[in-house]
Amino acid sequence: MLPYKNLLAIDKSSHTAVFKQIALHFIRLIQEGKLLPGTELPSTRILATDLGLHRKTITAAYDYLVAGNWLDSLPRKGFIVSPQLPVTKPRSYHNHRQGGYNTGPGFSYEQFPDFSYPASVSRGPEIVVDDGFPDISLLPADAMLKEYRRALEYPMLKKISSGWELEGSADFRSALCGFLTQTRGLDIRVEHLLTTRGAQMAIYVAAALIIKPGDKVIVSDPSYFFANMIFENLGAELIRIPVDDQGMRTDMVEEVLKTQAVKLLYVIPHHHHPTTVTLGVERRNHLLQLVRNYQLAVIEDDYDYDFQFQSDPYLPLASGHHEGNIIYIGSLTKVLGTPFRLGYIVAAEKFIHAAARKRILIDLRGDVFSEQVVAGLIENGDLTRLIQKANKLYCQRCDYLGNLLSTTFGETIEFKKPDGGMAMWLQFKPGVPLEKVIARAASRGLRIAGTVYHPGKGADFNAFRFGFASLDTAGLEKAVDILQAALRLTGT
Amino acid sequence: MLPYKNLLAIDKSSHTAVFKQIALHFIRLIQEGKLLPGTELPSTRILATDLGLHRKTITAAYDYLVAGNWLDSLPRKGFIVSPQLPVTKPRSYHNHRQGGYNTGPGFSYEQFPDFSYPASVSRGPEIVVDDGFPDISLLPADAMLKEYRRALEYPMLKKISSGWELEGSADFRSALCGFLTQTRGLDIRVEHLLTTRGAQMAIYVAAALIIKPGDKVIVSDPSYFFANMIFENLGAELIRIPVDDQGMRTDMVEEVLKTQAVKLLYVIPHHHHPTTVTLGVERRNHLLQLVRNYQLAVIEDDYDYDFQFQSDPYLPLASGHHEGNIIYIGSLTKVLGTPFRLGYIVAAEKFIHAAARKRILIDLRGDVFSEQVVAGLIENGDLTRLIQKANKLYCQRCDYLGNLLSTTFGETIEFKKPDGGMAMWLQFKPGVPLEKVIARAASRGLRIAGTVYHPGKGADFNAFRFGFASLDTAGLEKAVDILQAALRLTGT
Repeated sequence: MLPYKNLLAIDKSSHTAVFKQIALHFIRLIQEGKLLPGTELPSTRILATDLGLHRKTITAAYDYLVAGNWLDSLPRKGFIVSPQLPVTKPRSYHNHRQGGYNTGPGFSYEQFPDFSYPASVSRGPEIVVDDGFPDISLLPADAMLKEYRRALEYPMLKKISSGWELEGSADFRSALCGFLTQTRGLDIRVEHLLTTRGAQMAIYVAAALIIKPGDKVIVSDPSYFFANMIFENLGAELIRIPVDDQGMRTDMVEEVLKTQAVKLLYVIPHHHHPTTVTLGVERRNHLLQLVRNYQLAVIEDDYDYDFQFQSDPYLPLASGHHEGNIIYIGSLTKVLGTPFRLGYIVAAEKFIHAAARKRILIDLRGDVFSEQVVAGLIENGDLTRLIQKANKLYCQRCDYLGNLLSTTFGETIEFKKPDGGMAMWLQFKPGVPLEKVIARAASRGLRIAGTVYHPGKGADFNAFRFGFASLDTAGLEKAVDILQAALRLTGT
Repeated sequence: MLPYKNLLAIDKSSHTAVFKQIALHFIRLIQEGKLLPGTELPSTRILATDLGLHRKTITAAYDYLVAGNWLDSLPRKGFIVSPQLPVTKPRSYHNHRQGGYNTGPGFSYEQFPDFSYPASVSRGPEIVVDDGFPDISLLPADAMLKEYRRALEYPMLKKISSGWELEGSADFRSALCGFLTQTRGLDIRVEHLLTTRGAQMAIYVAAALIIKPGDKVIVSDPSYFFANMIFENLGAELIRIPVDDQGMRTDMVEEVLKTQAVKLLYVIPHHHHPTTVTLGVERRNHLLQLVRNYQLAVIEDDYDYDFQFQSDPYLPLASGHHEGNIIYIGSLTKVLGTPFRLGYIVAAEKFIHAAARKRILIDLRGDVFSEQVVAGLIENGDLTRLIQKANKLYCQRCDYLGNLLSTTFGETIEFKKPDGGMAMWLQFKPGVPLEKVIARAASRGLRIAGTVYHPGKGADFNAFRFGFASLDTAGLEKAVDILQAALRLTGT
């Protein structure tokens, strides 16, 4: 007899019934070929004694296995492993010699190149400079908990569960509609709103409706990495337009439009990612004019509009005269923090109709629970209070970092204090071996987790994004100190 | 002077600063053409008196508007509406005469046909028969609230916010991995797991990696509506294989595979949607054999595995010998309820690697907050307890409905009690005008919100899904009574 006492180890703390644990152990043994078809099993009495369990438990386990054709119960002979097992051979997912997914005539799939991304898993004392994330400690946890409680109470929970509006939950959309009208001068009704899981899904859904393989898409150079990934994955050909201190070069956009059929333009007018430049007034008007003249489809990614330091009044392009050609995309993630991914698309009703049906394919119902919670935060004014509080704080941190940098580095690092947002774009002198500097900094406890561009990475830039919003002044000082030391170590 | 007192109505309860409210009102008036370029505005003193506000407030509003090029401040003349406005013409999103999104050489987009879906917004006393949703009142609200509180406490919230694992949060994946191994006999490690927003995103991501336009995909007939929508949207040609009382006709699948190059097969082995049939043992083994012989890629949609009434032991096909060709998809939505959309893909490591990168395009980070909450529910055993409790209850409700139906309708309605799940497939005699019956029922307070097929809808079936899990015995009785009355009214 096999050493069942060891093979059938019972986890009393587990919430799986003991009889079922035994049954699953047997299934494993059978799958692993340790118990072959026809093998006789110990009687319930013997096994019960061996395992120190009640006989009824063993009987229940055997019945379970018989019901599943794992065992046969033979008169007089007792229980044997079934000669015809419902499933055979184990370890299908581990079996890499057999190749699995990318072998065989019938099976091929789209492979993705590996890419680096701003991972920011904080480890102990390390200081992390992120890509520009909010300070999560500002989150009104109590207010949110109140909303979670409210959403979990029965009548409300029933309402949330049984409703299904394709464009997002009604309460959230009406609260959001009010918020956007108030803050962005957008003249919209809820019919112009679709909720998504963060701005990423908004961009994906909108782009997937518009782009066919081979279509030309105008993006800035540099541009938001994950948006370019979407366009390229959809088969678009990217036309890259440089960004200067006024933002995207709209004169060069016009030159392209004169000679080529362009399907879509992607622009980030506020605190452009990664450079944090804000699109100037003349450029805005020029772009709106191009949109009208060429009936150009535009995705306006306004991911951190809510954080503008000057009473800078630039409204979104979408509040201008674009004849419905601008698809306006935003998110509450920069307000509430990375775990809370509520984004939205503002567009003409017909487009929202199609976008909602595209979203269903990807994400049947959306996050109606979180939507209910955040609708509460908007209605209570908690969201606005959070924005006002954060905006003030981030503005101070931006100034503080700016002063630190200019006094510490002088010419070595070139930067322009952004009009808002949560990150600064630090451009290093051409000579500076940025990759080395970042490695040195890491070895001294400073992890640069923001977007980095340097010649070694095939870019013409020698820069990275310094997220200042999530660090207090002490953190900013420490980060700059380490960065300075790292630069010295690399002899710059 | 315009009746500013009315036009500039101030909402004192609003959390937007009063000066900003006034400024936004002015912007609206300018956008709507009620204030034309060059128009003189009342002095700050006069407007302040008129609105009963402090003059400083008006000055702040005017400064805000001047900064935004909405107003010009002219020496001696005071404030006028700027001759060059940053934006002109309003109502871009309302303007349907100009066509907006679907006009112009530059802009076309994928249009979606309208489709009917099981909306189930509950209105008052009405009884809703859904498509097969859990009873939301079973949800352990207190346990969940505890987890929400835990997740919102600072160190944990910081951890959730700063981590970014492409395949889903580590805590959730390891908890889920344990749960799946215990319950489904899957021999997997976390490397074989990707978390998604519900099964829908899991199917979309997997299918989008595999299907190119023109590829052939085998589905059952009938099959899950929203899965077919995905495959067709990706450009697949569907090959429909009938379902009988043993599930998908694998002999017919083999015939197809002999003669055609098939890229993917989609199967629902447990409680097939919509028919609720469970795939028989012989068919399972036959299908596994076909998978190996043809190296056929399979999406196994096991959306409600956790609800099996007999100690029915059918394990997933993915626990069998498939050489890594089965992509196993599941969800916790059928356990926790429609608002909580946590799904997953189990597949070979290489496929998960690619799927994670595809998911990033759609949904950058996933729902790491909910993942943390549900990880807690799994570790505490709350999830298992919920499943056991619900399973017992649903089994009773299934029996109860079955008896009600056979005693009430005899031959008129044909059905087979499912082995598990949350819905019954009611097939009506060919003569029965199902559409009329449903309309009659609705007029009497019974809304059939489940999947409906009838000849009028271009299907060969005359049937609908009766979700029994969310209704107590009283509700089931009332629903059957009304259905009976509705049948009588239509003379059947």
